[in-house]
Amino acid sequence: MLPEKSLAWGQSKSCIRELAAYGTARKAEIGKDKVFDFSIGNPSVPAPDCVAEAISALLKEDSLELHGYTPASGRMSFRTAIAEDLNRRYQAGVSADMIYVTCGAAAGLSSCTHGLLLPGEEAVTFAPFFPEYTVFTEAAGGKLVSVLPAEGLQPDMAAFAAALNEKTKLVIINTPNNPSGVVLSAESLQSIGDILRRAEEKYGHTIYLVSDEPYRELVYDGVQAPCVMHFYDDTIICYSFSKSLSLPGERVGYLAVSSRMAEKEKVFASIAGAARSCGYVNAPSMMQRVIEKCLGQTADISQYKQSRDLLYGGLTALGFDCVKPDGAFYLFMKTPEPDAKAFSERAKKFELLLVPSDDFGLPGYVRIAYCVSPEMIQRSMPAFKLLAEEYGL
Amino acid sequence: MLPEKSLAWGQSKSCIRELAAYGTARKAEIGKDKVFDFSIGNPSVPAPDCVAEAISALLKEDSLELHGYTPASGRMSFRTAIAEDLNRRYQAGVSADMIYVTCGAAAGLSSCTHGLLLPGEEAVTFAPFFPEYTVFTEAAGGKLVSVLPAEGLQPDMAAFAAALNEKTKLVIINTPNNPSGVVLSAESLQSIGDILRRAEEKYGHTIYLVSDEPYRELVYDGVQAPCVMHFYDDTIICYSFSKSLSLPGERVGYLAVSSRMAEKEKVFASIAGAARSCGYVNAPSMMQRVIEKCLGQTADISQYKQSRDLLYGGLTALGFDCVKPDGAFYLFMKTPEPDAKAFSERAKKFELLLVPSDDFGLPGYVRIAYCVSPEMIQRSMPAFKLLAEEYGL
Repeated sequence: MLPEKSLAWGQSKSCIRELAAYGTARKAEIGKDKVFDFSIGNPSVPAPDCVAEAISALLKEDSLELHGYTPASGRMSFRTAIAEDLNRRYQAGVSADMIYVTCGAAAGLSSCTHGLLLPGEEAVTFAPFFPEYTVFTEAAGGKLVSVLPAEGLQPDMAAFAAALNEKTKLVIINTPNNPSGVVLSAESLQSIGDILRRAEEKYGHTIYLVSDEPYRELVYDGVQAPCVMHFYDDTIICYSFSKSLSLPGERVGYLAVSSRMAEKEKVFASIAGAARSCGYVNAPSMMQRVIEKCLGQTADISQYKQSRDLLYGGLTALGFDCVKPDGAFYLFMKTPEPDAKAFSERAKKFELLLVPSDDFGLPGYVRIAYCVSPEMIQRSMPAFKLLAEEYGL
Repeated sequence: MLPEKSLAWGQSKSCIRELAAYGTARKAEIGKDKVFDFSIGNPSVPAPDCVAEAISALLKEDSLELHGYTPASGRMSFRTAIAEDLNRRYQAGVSADMIYVTCGAAAGLSSCTHGLLLPGEEAVTFAPFFPEYTVFTEAAGGKLVSVLPAEGLQPDMAAFAAALNEKTKLVIINTPNNPSGVVLSAESLQSIGDILRRAEEKYGHTIYLVSDEPYRELVYDGVQAPCVMHFYDDTIICYSFSKSLSLPGERVGYLAVSSRMAEKEKVFASIAGAARSCGYVNAPSMMQRVIEKCLGQTADISQYKQSRDLLYGGLTALGFDCVKPDGAFYLFMKTPEPDAKAFSERAKKFELLLVPSDDFGLPGYVRIAYCVSPEMIQRSMPAFKLLAEEYGL
């Protein structure tokens, strides 16, 4: 007998990965330029030059130091640089010893669920949400509770307050959001903080706010993603350099525990212990040094805004009902028929690969990843037009 | 309330890491050359040139592909190359689709315990053993059962057979062994296989043999570490390139499921699901390509044999009782007083940093990591002489 959940997680196909695999096969069949693949969130702008420059420079150094173990929580100089960067940009007030360098945001999130949840406790999140939240929560013996959104996919604060109970231990937010591109405003974060403080008092225990923010720098039209730590003391930030530096495969990110959290040392230790028990030894050593040299820089993310404008403008002109994304590189579009999977299937007829929203906890949408060239978006518009006509838009 | 175990794992100091930290501080105090630091298993020979050459060559390629996500189980070309390498060197008969590229052997081991153990089930291992086996087993809700060794730290087969029961789901072996350097012979592996087949029949369920072998290539005097898959069908190999290529901080290894395992696809899926639930997305992407280009090569590991000979020869001449290591880069030495911690403390007086064996599940020894320069071993001998004299050897 094998563990039921592990087996299910290993056997279940991610609907994103499945569509991406279909795309790869289809491109081989009819040509790369004929398929409009909006399935996967792989950055489309190259890593900034500082990455290759830093790697070249480091290759001249001692290989034992370069490729050797680092402390489990990361190189101290890197942790210090991360804390300084957060404090300079956001006055976050974090200290280097509360930074833990992780193998990407996923490792940070999993370490939080394993290090904070007791069996039977609940994590609350806002739909639509990244599907792995369910896996990380259940792996730790907890249960993910999802709160449906209000108008414009903004958080429904009344529903959120109602979802909290004596079992709530964690709240996971994702801003800018994958799959919707919604960025939580300062007002929303203030409300979330107020509601959580009241719940902590009512239920007599700490509720941790885990902020998953790999898309932090990908915001448009002057929108900013405010620093969550300003609104709530029991906050942990999970970050990844995957999107800002276009290094998703290299698996380097960090988590930062707020300096204003009452039991921050114990919380940090418990998360570190959970990471250890999952088999994390340290985040890749050379890349820690590379990214330390590139801190504060980003890939040329301005292209994503151009793609967003083209896609949003084009789709709304065709009559599709879209949520305008303020950040990340996903557009969430209402499907003209209630069954998102059926719509996604029909879109394939026009070589459009759009991810149905069911796995994101909110039916009736597709996620369109616009981390593709603006040129491809322009070429895809006739296909979207045919799709719109199928539905009489 | 935080999860008790995670908190304990985060708060407990590894006695290896603690001694290494003491060493770093002591070196800063009295000078690097004055401290004989045998605490930690960081390779002392640089990565082979092929590593830097491969990195330089890859920097000329498309950065999006180079640093992009790979499939969770690794790049198919890398998995294929790993399978071919195992089949060429060991006639292992493994197929590429049963190779899962991991973030080092630790990630592979943790994925095995999480993906195979049900709560309350047992994993059996041979003392002395790597301390993280306890953590990975308990994190999965299981219990680690340790079998004390026979003469020369060889496995005690009668004690092993007696340790198996209806709760036994896993057996973890480590060959060449950390901390003892013992390499399991073909005869020992045959006995282990025979005992396990009988136990499978008796208890009516599969018992998985997990072979942790990051030191596979570090063997001396013509000794070979036989391929475990030849002796037992329900075998999973966990490997890391940390030691053979001197890349411990880069976190790349793999696990390989035997082609002769009856339910290999399900087992592979369950392990993959466990890796996913721990937050593993993929092993670092660029390093997968680098190592694919270096497969079959090793760092200049011949230096370890020289260090072993110097150390073993020197210590036995002084009257210490040592197990001659056939592999890895550790020497396990009996302490002349029963309390290994007290002995390790006394060794510090002579600036000798030796890890007490208690955490390895076998009291009364110290582990001496000889992944240091032969020159340092020579310089350390007068200190060992003084230590021997303290005990009247």
